[in-house]
Amino acid sequence: MNVKDLGELRLIEYLTNLIAQRTEGQSESLGHKLIIDISDDAMAWTNPKTTSLATTDTIVEGVHFTKNTSNWEDLAWKVITANLSDIASMGGLPIYALITLGIPDETKVEDLGLLYKGILDTAAEYKFKVVGGDIVKSQYVFITVSLIGATDSYPMNRASAKPGDQIGITGFLGSSLAGLKIITEKLETHMDNSSKFKVAHLRPKPHLMQGRLLSNSGIVSAMDISDGLVTDLSKLCKASQVSASIKAHSLPIDPLLKNLFPKEYVLMGLTGGEDYPILFTAPPEIMRCILPKLPFPASTIGTILDGPPGNVIVTDETGQDITPPLGGWDHFS
Amino acid sequence: MNVKDLGELRLIEYLTNLIAQRTEGQSESLGHKLIIDISDDAMAWTNPKTTSLATTDTIVEGVHFTKNTSNWEDLAWKVITANLSDIASMGGLPIYALITLGIPDETKVEDLGLLYKGILDTAAEYKFKVVGGDIVKSQYVFITVSLIGATDSYPMNRASAKPGDQIGITGFLGSSLAGLKIITEKLETHMDNSSKFKVAHLRPKPHLMQGRLLSNSGIVSAMDISDGLVTDLSKLCKASQVSASIKAHSLPIDPLLKNLFPKEYVLMGLTGGEDYPILFTAPPEIMRCILPKLPFPASTIGTILDGPPGNVIVTDETGQDITPPLGGWDHFS
Repeated sequence: MNVKDLGELRLIEYLTNLIAQRTEGQSESLGHKLIIDISDDAMAWTNPKTTSLATTDTIVEGVHFTKNTSNWEDLAWKVITANLSDIASMGGLPIYALITLGIPDETKVEDLGLLYKGILDTAAEYKFKVVGGDIVKSQYVFITVSLIGATDSYPMNRASAKPGDQIGITGFLGSSLAGLKIITEKLETHMDNSSKFKVAHLRPKPHLMQGRLLSNSGIVSAMDISDGLVTDLSKLCKASQVSASIKAHSLPIDPLLKNLFPKEYVLMGLTGGEDYPILFTAPPEIMRCILPKLPFPASTIGTILDGPPGNVIVTDETGQDITPPLGGWDHFS
Repeated sequence: MNVKDLGELRLIEYLTNLIAQRTEGQSESLGHKLIIDISDDAMAWTNPKTTSLATTDTIVEGVHFTKNTSNWEDLAWKVITANLSDIASMGGLPIYALITLGIPDETKVEDLGLLYKGILDTAAEYKFKVVGGDIVKSQYVFITVSLIGATDSYPMNRASAKPGDQIGITGFLGSSLAGLKIITEKLETHMDNSSKFKVAHLRPKPHLMQGRLLSNSGIVSAMDISDGLVTDLSKLCKASQVSASIKAHSLPIDPLLKNLFPKEYVLMGLTGGEDYPILFTAPPEIMRCILPKLPFPASTIGTILDGPPGNVIVTDETGQDITPPLGGWDHFS
């Protein structure tokens, strides 16, 4: 059945029931309490004395995905993870999500069920409540998620890096790009053990626990890597009015990725997006104190310098400059 | 110049500057304080001990508007008012807005400047801060606004109407529909004084002050009328598990509208959407106490009854049933 046959009211009822089945009795993090859900004009909740966070991300058919190559559950992970990662990079926890769907009227109701399964799976895994949103007709699919989070510390941010800071990173780089290459270049038949990269691409994971622990350990300078290490580090440096130098041989790259892409792995680690690790900086004495105690892998890859704001230089083992051109995703160029 | 020539980074810079010029030094209602704006991964603010509110609304080209007949400033009012009205109907004040734009790459930068002028005009008039959002490429234009508000009372809501309550309404009904008819049926040449209806349609005003005063006066049962009186009253009745009876001759309709549309005005008042007055209910003794003190026009139009949930009956002066068929906007039917 498609949404045209079902009609808007019954579609909203169907999705509301899906949400209710999965969220009954679920309580919220950090003392928040939902008092009115979005079946009313607006949702309402009571806050404890925390700092609130909000972010929004959108994916559009034909720009961020095509219906032929994506499944609806994966789309949910893609857009929700982008939002969760923004909250993670501030050291926060997600609390409430508002979902806006733009859909053609021939969209299958079962597909929306799969999309909501994906959304509610992420909600269960990362402990936030889907409290409603908006459904509108649109010639192409788009999905907008607005996520409200909270933290009981001062939020980690992009504008706090200082010259002399070491640059740290949680988890591996380039894995999502490896997955994309395996899928689009159809490399899978030649490769064993490649499925973890496909999972990294299709179901990226936000580093919420990592961000929370970093913030609780006293880290104040951080952002998530969504567009690629060099591009995002440059943004952090610009916001902090500093430069950075990173050593390519220190990049945290999965050993299997190095085996699979022996000639490309450095560039993949420097430029690949959508891995969502957290980039953070701190003075060396703080890094020395914090890093050994973290219950997840984290590595240092370079140093923050006094220099032209936003400038990032990458050197190889011999000290040669191998900085890739600044790129990142530009929707309009 | 179009956005493709400007590129995403410079477009964001341009819009960020527009926002900064208009919001510098502006402080927030009810003790909120922005500590990090959306130039970072997420925005962050500190809350006083209030109840927070959130809502989201989207308009899509070809569904809610066409580029030929709409100007960009009016589009801003259209989507922002829909959001503000949701906050108004809970008795809250708007605090922060996140704007998501989906735009084709040939969109003119000047047009986005006009859109943001409209958005920032509403922000100045209704005292909220535009703190960022997301810009994505899309084949058709869409604009999603997520609005965060707050109230220091318990939010007015749809589920609190009780049998015996009188039904009140702030302001006039049908004015927006009158404006739409004047524009689309090109009636303007025959009509003097018709411009106020065009303004009511193109630049609808949310009843924020009204909602706030009603809530502060002790009203707990309310919603905004966006889809038309009968449709929305039926939703309120369904949420409250009650019925309603309204008297057509009590409808608050602009006398000029009655003159311009002598045969249609009752139906226009019963079914016209996008006027955004607030519908509220309260026991007669409370209405008697509150209504004379309100500094804005408000009228009572009927009574809440014990009966089938969602049932609404409209009678004329002779007591005859003239209930129009339940309609309202369904995107998919």
